[in-house]
Amino acid sequence: MTLAVHKLCDSLGYSFNQPELLQRALSHRSVGSDNNERLEFLGDSILSYVISVELFKRFPKIDEGGLSRLRASLVKGDTLAVVARELSLGDYLRLGPGELKSGGFRRSSILADALEALLGAIYIDSDIETVQGVILHLFNERLTAVNPDTSLKDPKTRLQEYLQSRQLALPSYEVINITGKAHAQTFSVSCRIEGLDKEVVADGSSRRKAEQTAAQLILEKLDSE
Amino acid sequence: MTLAVHKLCDSLGYSFNQPELLQRALSHRSVGSDNNERLEFLGDSILSYVISVELFKRFPKIDEGGLSRLRASLVKGDTLAVVARELSLGDYLRLGPGELKSGGFRRSSILADALEALLGAIYIDSDIETVQGVILHLFNERLTAVNPDTSLKDPKTRLQEYLQSRQLALPSYEVINITGKAHAQTFSVSCRIEGLDKEVVADGSSRRKAEQTAAQLILEKLDSE
Repeated sequence: MTLAVHKLCDSLGYSFNQPELLQRALSHRSVGSDNNERLEFLGDSILSYVISVELFKRFPKIDEGGLSRLRASLVKGDTLAVVARELSLGDYLRLGPGELKSGGFRRSSILADALEALLGAIYIDSDIETVQGVILHLFNERLTAVNPDTSLKDPKTRLQEYLQSRQLALPSYEVINITGKAHAQTFSVSCRIEGLDKEVVADGSSRRKAEQTAAQLILEKLDSE
Repeated sequence: MTLAVHKLCDSLGYSFNQPELLQRALSHRSVGSDNNERLEFLGDSILSYVISVELFKRFPKIDEGGLSRLRASLVKGDTLAVVARELSLGDYLRLGPGELKSGGFRRSSILADALEALLGAIYIDSDIETVQGVILHLFNERLTAVNPDTSLKDPKTRLQEYLQSRQLALPSYEVINITGKAHAQTFSVSCRIEGLDKEVVADGSSRRKAEQTAAQLILEKLDSE
């Protein structure tokens, strides 16, 4: 291991038994077949499990919809990219020539994926309790800062407040399709915002769920602009 | 515990230390506030983690996209409902009067949710290794039967084969919107099938991903009909 990699292990609070796993976790697919994509698959599910358990324990009064929203805010790509930057993960990434030239080591999606891969690699190198400890260490402040009051508003409410604060028209929801037999129906709902030229369609097992998903999709579009 | 519940614990290969957790896992939200929704949230993430790890180990040659598709086929609601029916979970459910009357104990979504809640309850009652053992016991045959060759075809390929086998028109994909800055764009793609009156719109971080998601949505619609 190089001195730089020792620094990364210090920040993580974890030292690899098999340094080749760390190398792979830091290898973007642009470097070739020995890359971090499978480890990312693993790390993604481990992170979601660890955060779910932690939220379940910390917030005994919050319902399932609220827990899902809190989890989504903690494990979304933007949050992971922030954590990755705190670890200076970009300094350790291995990228192919094209990605190097275009500044891939600064790109949020590449950083977020590498963080997940790193968690997957720690799991393979150790066990679930160890990686759980690393995750809680990395996310401790964020978990403590979680504010259920603001994070827990549902997407339709947040969309409405967003639009009102900008004096824009309110969204209109419309069921455009219902498929499937009774009790196993899928509702397709469109959400449109007059004057903003935004429309999305989302599916759900109820009209309410489809509307919430549609509102979430529009919020993400507005967010990314 | 009643005799019936003993039978369920036998099938699961797990006996609860805190029977009230089992009761809660079997309580649909229609019975009131002490229901299984929070346990379902927990069980869902545990199941996904356990299946991800197992697939990662069993299929060292399969890439991340393939692993994701295999996982989706194992943890989707339809599969969970089959497992729940094998456990006769419907016989143990606690439902409110309305759900009872409309046959809620036979409904796939209620059964699938209860199975996830049961896994969450076992976790709270024991530890992750124990619930991992229960999940691998319940999914063992399905994991062994996984055929990467057929399961691993991507949604666009499967949709094309489905339509061709029925001599229907092939789908047409069209990018209808691109939002976000370079390197963080969201592509909205529509997928339409001439003569079937089917159209969906899906988002993705690349045109290819959005097309695959749209194909998956149409496949699910066709499946549910």
